[in-house]
Amino acid sequence: MKANISGIIKLLEDIAPSRLAEDWDNVGLQVGKRDWPVRTVWVSLDPLPEVVTAACREKVDLLITHHPLIFRPIKNLDFDTPMGAILKRATENRLGILSAHTNLDAAADGINDVLASKIGLKNVKVLGDEIKTLPSDALDYQVNPLMPVHSGLGLGRIGELEDPLNLGAFAISVKEKFGVSHAKVAGSRDLIVSKAAVCSGSGSGLLGHFFSSDAQAYISGDLRYHDARDAEAQNRGLIDIGHFASEQIILEVLTEQLQVRSIKAGMDVTIKVCRLEKDPFMII
Amino acid sequence: MKANISGIIKLLEDIAPSRLAEDWDNVGLQVGKRDWPVRTVWVSLDPLPEVVTAACREKVDLLITHHPLIFRPIKNLDFDTPMGAILKRATENRLGILSAHTNLDAAADGINDVLASKIGLKNVKVLGDEIKTLPSDALDYQVNPLMPVHSGLGLGRIGELEDPLNLGAFAISVKEKFGVSHAKVAGSRDLIVSKAAVCSGSGSGLLGHFFSSDAQAYISGDLRYHDARDAEAQNRGLIDIGHFASEQIILEVLTEQLQVRSIKAGMDVTIKVCRLEKDPFMII
Amino acid sequence: MKANISGIIKLLEDIAPSRLAEDWDNVGLQVGKRDWPVRTVWVSLDPLPEVVTAACREKVDLLITHHPLIFRPIKNLDFDTPMGAILKRATENRLGILSAHTNLDAAADGINDVLASKIGLKNVKVLGDEIKTLPSDALDYQVNPLMPVHSGLGLGRIGELEDPLNLGAFAISVKEKFGVSHAKVAGSRDLIVSKAAVCSGSGSGLLGHFFSSDAQAYISGDLRYHDARDAEAQNRGLIDIGHFASEQIILEVLTEQLQVRSIKAGMDVTIKVCRLEKDPFMII
Amino acid sequence: MKANISGIIKLLEDIAPSRLAEDWDNVGLQVGKRDWPVRTVWVSLDPLPEVVTAACREKVDLLITHHPLIFRPIKNLDFDTPMGAILKRATENRLGILSAHTNLDAAADGINDVLASKIGLKNVKVLGDEIKTLPSDALDYQVNPLMPVHSGLGLGRIGELEDPLNLGAFAISVKEKFGVSHAKVAGSRDLIVSKAAVCSGSGSGLLGHFFSSDAQAYISGDLRYHDARDAEAQNRGLIDIGHFASEQIILEVLTEQLQVRSIKAGMDVTIKVCRLEKDPFMII
Amino acid sequence: MKANISGIIKLLEDIAPSRLAEDWDNVGLQVGKRDWPVRTVWVSLDPLPEVVTAACREKVDLLITHHPLIFRPIKNLDFDTPMGAILKRATENRLGILSAHTNLDAAADGINDVLASKIGLKNVKVLGDEIKTLPSDALDYQVNPLMPVHSGLGLGRIGELEDPLNLGAFAISVKEKFGVSHAKVAGSRDLIVSKAAVCSGSGSGLLGHFFSSDAQAYISGDLRYHDARDAEAQNRGLIDIGHFASEQIILEVLTEQLQVRSIKAGMDVTIKVCRLEKDPFMII
Amino acid sequence: MKANISGIIKLLEDIAPSRLAEDWDNVGLQVGKRDWPVRTVWVSLDPLPEVVTAACREKVDLLITHHPLIFRPIKNLDFDTPMGAILKRATENRLGILSAHTNLDAAADGINDVLASKIGLKNVKVLGDEIKTLPSDALDYQVNPLMPVHSGLGLGRIGELEDPLNLGAFAISVKEKFGVSHAKVAGSRDLIVSKAAVCSGSGSGLLGHFFSSDAQAYISGDLRYHDARDAEAQNRGLIDIGHFASEQIILEVLTEQLQVRSIKAGMDVTIKVCRLEKDPFMII
Repeated sequence: MKANISGIIKLLEDIAPSRLAEDWDNVGLQVGKRDWPVRTVWVSLDPLPEVVTAACREKVDLLITHHPLIFRPIKNLDFDTPMGAILKRATENRLGILSAHTNLDAAADGINDVLASKIGLKNVKVLGDEIKTLPSDALDYQVNPLMPVHSGLGLGRIGELEDPLNLGAFAISVKEKFGVSHAKVAGSRDLIVSKAAVCSGSGSGLLGHFFSSDAQAYISGDLRYHDARDAEAQNRGLIDIGHFASEQIILEVLTEQLQVRSIKAGMDVTIKVCRLEKDPFMII
Repeated sequence: MKANISGIIKLLEDIAPSRLAEDWDNVGLQVGKRDWPVRTVWVSLDPLPEVVTAACREKVDLLITHHPLIFRPIKNLDFDTPMGAILKRATENRLGILSAHTNLDAAADGINDVLASKIGLKNVKVLGDEIKTLPSDALDYQVNPLMPVHSGLGLGRIGELEDPLNLGAFAISVKEKFGVSHAKVAGSRDLIVSKAAVCSGSGSGLLGHFFSSDAQAYISGDLRYHDARDAEAQNRGLIDIGHFASEQIILEVLTEQLQVRSIKAGMDVTIKVCRLEKDPFMII
Repeated sequence: MKANISGIIKLLEDIAPSRLAEDWDNVGLQVGKRDWPVRTVWVSLDPLPEVVTAACREKVDLLITHHPLIFRPIKNLDFDTPMGAILKRATENRLGILSAHTNLDAAADGINDVLASKIGLKNVKVLGDEIKTLPSDALDYQVNPLMPVHSGLGLGRIGELEDPLNLGAFAISVKEKFGVSHAKVAGSRDLIVSKAAVCSGSGSGLLGHFFSSDAQAYISGDLRYHDARDAEAQNRGLIDIGHFASEQIILEVLTEQLQVRSIKAGMDVTIKVCRLEKDPFMII
Repeated sequence: MKANISGIIKLLEDIAPSRLAEDWDNVGLQVGKRDWPVRTVWVSLDPLPEVVTAACREKVDLLITHHPLIFRPIKNLDFDTPMGAILKRATENRLGILSAHTNLDAAADGINDVLASKIGLKNVKVLGDEIKTLPSDALDYQVNPLMPVHSGLGLGRIGELEDPLNLGAFAISVKEKFGVSHAKVAGSRDLIVSKAAVCSGSGSGLLGHFFSSDAQAYISGDLRYHDARDAEAQNRGLIDIGHFASEQIILEVLTEQLQVRSIKAGMDVTIKVCRLEKDPFMII
Repeated sequence: MKANISGIIKLLEDIAPSRLAEDWDNVGLQVGKRDWPVRTVWVSLDPLPEVVTAACREKVDLLITHHPLIFRPIKNLDFDTPMGAILKRATENRLGILSAHTNLDAAADGINDVLASKIGLKNVKVLGDEIKTLPSDALDYQVNPLMPVHSGLGLGRIGELEDPLNLGAFAISVKEKFGVSHAKVAGSRDLIVSKAAVCSGSGSGLLGHFFSSDAQAYISGDLRYHDARDAEAQNRGLIDIGHFASEQIILEVLTEQLQVRSIKAGMDVTIKVCRLEKDPFMII
Repeated sequence: MKANISGIIKLLEDIAPSRLAEDWDNVGLQVGKRDWPVRTVWVSLDPLPEVVTAACREKVDLLITHHPLIFRPIKNLDFDTPMGAILKRATENRLGILSAHTNLDAAADGINDVLASKIGLKNVKVLGDEIKTLPSDALDYQVNPLMPVHSGLGLGRIGELEDPLNLGAFAISVKEKFGVSHAKVAGSRDLIVSKAAVCSGSGSGLLGHFFSSDAQAYISGDLRYHDARDAEAQNRGLIDIGHFASEQIILEVLTEQLQVRSIKAGMDVTIKVCRLEKDPFMII
């Protein structure tokens, strides 16, 4: 069966429902038309100019990105701006761009679940505010309105380590699991870590939830100086593996989730991770 | 000399400087690239789908409209929506769209000045809040900081009739000057009108300025029931010639202003009024 | 039994409960004293100076209007203003003024229901946000908290035509039913209309609800140019019969509803439609 | 010459210009018509029901009050409420009500100046924010834009005592000057007072200005427990003579100011202090 | 058993749960460390400098006050300010300061209940907004979600007099019960009072609740001139016994409540009312 | 001459006037009393617990920090919290704490000027909004109100490199000048840099000013992933040397500035950089 953008939107919605996105976010179709045919899909973190250019050259039909192309609503299609140039190229080459951002962060088996799993956490729960869901059976709700319903959906995760480690050793093990050349660590190297929290992307916003929890260490990206001082004051540890590394892990997983679903749906489509991106920061 | 969009933007800026636009407005380039060549320009009130389609078919390079194409900033280029379809067609056909809205209303020899002139008003002043301008010579300002500077720029106009008329006769004369099939009139037909105010487009917003003035009649579009009741209570008259008719008069004037300037600039470009638009309301 | 203002307030409350009014509205007693005797009641749309003057001359005791006399709260009783002059006359002549505005719009058998019925719509539902009501039996609510309760109360209505018509023919039929000399129509005359929405008074505010519905045509008053352009873009039709005509239809109905209830209550009172009002707009 | 309300408004405007009133205040004509004739004027602090009733019985034409009749804008003339009953009585008896509130507090020779003078303060300045006035000669302003202009207008006053006194003795002297049966005093009785601040009416709002000044004592009304504790912490003294006593002193002064001006204007009018008011609080 | 601050906090929380405090309030530990030993406790209304000084001199370990020491959050520990001086003294002398403010006002057997009881009111209910509490048995809630739950918690109280009295006689009886030298009374002395409302501290904020109730008299502190005029207009009575007197009554009661609980908890601690405070206002 | 805290505040005010601080900042005395004697002063970036502990142990009298101890106003002195513990230790040991934060960033020869100088920038100007200063001679202002006054005060700096370098080489030179083990670089390594901007601390907030400038590279701390992507889109370069390193450079300079001024003032005081701090982040 031939696929089109509309069909791929349905597959992605099944993996990362757009209702899970934060209010300020702009997920879903960024540019394109639902009936455009889709044979080749690329999956990347960012709709970078070089990614869009290569996708157009390689006759890719749809680019699925984590970060939305349009973050602040636009007031014109000014093709002399970087944003306008990308939109023009995509439009002229019939390249659709589709994004799953905080909905993919929050989803079951989304970025944060993958992060927690990669680090080896057990008994994983949501770190931030849990997204409420109506139980599938409305009757249950009616009978038992005060019964807590754990959705497992939301930003960040918290879980237990297989065996407690001190922060120094834990940080080295995390660094190796993510294959990053460097990691920033704050807190006493001797701090015993038996429980850890994670947050994909920029983790400063969930720091309050971490401090209110009983986890000793927090793995995230884009952590700042005052975050580190606050962690010291609370006698906790921070491990910053970088925004890019904390999110890139989803690309293979999402690609596979899409492939499985597309095969099941009988869609004749090739889905691949785009190999052109690299961390915008190099540590020298 | 060959013209491009950038050159036409400069001509339009000279006629209706974008700094005169209201804060909430979105004037200027709506879609396009500044180095696109321009041989043919159409001038219209609205970037309607049929206008854009015809312009693309007729190989027009630039459409100048009064109402901006993008009014509320957009969050995506969804080509399945009416807005997305217009943007797609314009992009694919290299049709630029450029708008002058409240800046053209407020400008000297802009829509409101043309309105006042067509009705035959004399000693014309700005009806709304006058836009402040720094005198060209800063030295003057310094020496005389309290000296009022009349800019003649702003929304609406007020002026005197050649000879006082009663409202009934005045309304008929206005209707004939604009060639409209119908006009809505509120207030006593016997009211003597020696001074009148005008406001292009939707005039409800300037009604307070009209009531604070010493004009007896107000000519505008989109006036509402409670506006009419307020006018009755103030013993004033309203003449609603329709939003479309109150603005359409600018098309010929703006086209000529652009032609004069393009010739002076040695630009090889044809500028024409688009003849496809008609009032969306028909009175039956 | 002799009636007083207090008694008439109760009858009106039964027809158009004041709790149905919008938050910004000011319904109920505008001027008067609850124990003033009432023998004669006039019903009108507006508390116009000439209506109040005539009512005082004709020894009317209570004027019931649709539009509230006091819209913006007043800071003084300045009898040199139009508002002050009306209040003075009413006070000196012991004329009570009582208003039912958005509560009458929203009520069952209120203005919007009458509008829909006059146009001949079937299976009529509320167009705007439905006003929530507690079911009369609290026990039901308790047992079945998720059971939807359709109140049929709110602004605007939507329903089906007996037989589909094109917009041109539908507009002519509506115009004839309301006996108006002119109507403004927007949209393609060939559009097939099988479902229509209505909104009494100024309908721009409910346009979003109309576009979200599956009705093809919208009948209301005070519609504006950009409303018409939006309707064109959505391939829908608008029929503007005027604010006055869309509301005036309630006068006979409300008068009869009050008469029935006053007779039932054994009140010795005469209730009549005031015949002095006419549309403030004349189309020339 | 016969006087009317309009003429008296002009006299009062000369004494207490309405532009001096606070933004939240509602000064000026409360009820009445400018061409109503005026032979007898009463001056009182409050438009109490018994004052209005007596004024109507005594054929008074205008009641001038310090506290405005209408404080919160009203949404109806409901004659079953206390406010409605007063408005009805005034309207039916052609009694105008006119108020000068914070403009009379702030004016030159207004309540605060009279307060300061009665206490015997010298070198009196404004305690609160001084109201800015443009110098009469615009040329001066231009030449000397940074030159401070002391207007002497604003709320509260501050000045020096003829001879320093301790707070206990000062409080007794103030109490005697105002002829009040009781006064509330806070602060050490031994505190030496050489400078004092005053504020008519409710003085809590200007307490910050008092603490920032170098005055040792503050005379006002409606002072509260926490005000007293704050004064103790700052080692200052408070003397609360009551809201009523702090304002009543203006009645004779204002009456005389009006008489002088009415005679000068050749108006045939009798102006008297209403003797019916007494402090609503009795101390037992 | 030796007591510490932590233990006393638990006793106080049992008497006046901190969740009952208003949002803007700052109850609980103001200064101190939870493991500081406590042998002697003083109870007072305010953390006045002289109270803190005496407590330090007398080796008191904990001062419990009604009014919080820190009302507006502080930006520094500037020991040159009155607030800084108190904090410094308390810190250097290991004197803890703990406050129960609006939670003590709202509590069962808190200040308002004591006030009502002292005045002799029966069938006492909450005057202000009742604080909602979940019933202890969640199952009940579920079965009966609309069943009202009266908590008896909140600000102010209302109740019936044993025998109706006129306001004059009632005021004298209240004055005698509180042993105050003076009380301010507003309203007609002949008004028959069968139901009365009370509010500890500054009662202006609950005046609206009083006017909406069917009580004829209101006993509180810090009542103002316009409160008195409003009461006259509503034909109600006010009795102002002073902020201090309305709250001081709690000191003995709270001390006893703490003693009972401390003995029951086997704590070896002496709790006494501080006898150093007096009303900051003296009436001369 | 013996020094006290008051004297040192004056020296610091001369170096970094507190009026230069941002509105949200809390500079100046954090804890202490102005008449406490000062013999030894330490200068550090943060009032860390270990710094305060060591200062107390070493009998230091005053700790001057860049980051304020109290950032969010505090509601109590709860000695069981990290903040309370520091305040308690400082109070008991008579250690004053004084902070100069954004005022030191903005000052002439403050952190940003030192940053720019260390990097070797020439023709240095303010990057952020320049803080306006009145010229010392008011007369000048009057005569020449439009004459721009460059204060050189504000956040961030921008200046020219001695010789243009590509971003890669520039980043290595910056890294060496600051002696940091690692730096994060974003942007093309081949980008030619002739002009650079700097911002001490967390530089994300001034990124817009950098993009609006003509500098090619930006040196700061706490830069984030999306900052790097934005820089790529703008074809600019970022060099993140860390928040700590970008600020630590001021310690020696500030210490020397204070020493010079204290000697000049004849104060008998020792001022030293605290050597106990290290970057809270370690890169592994």
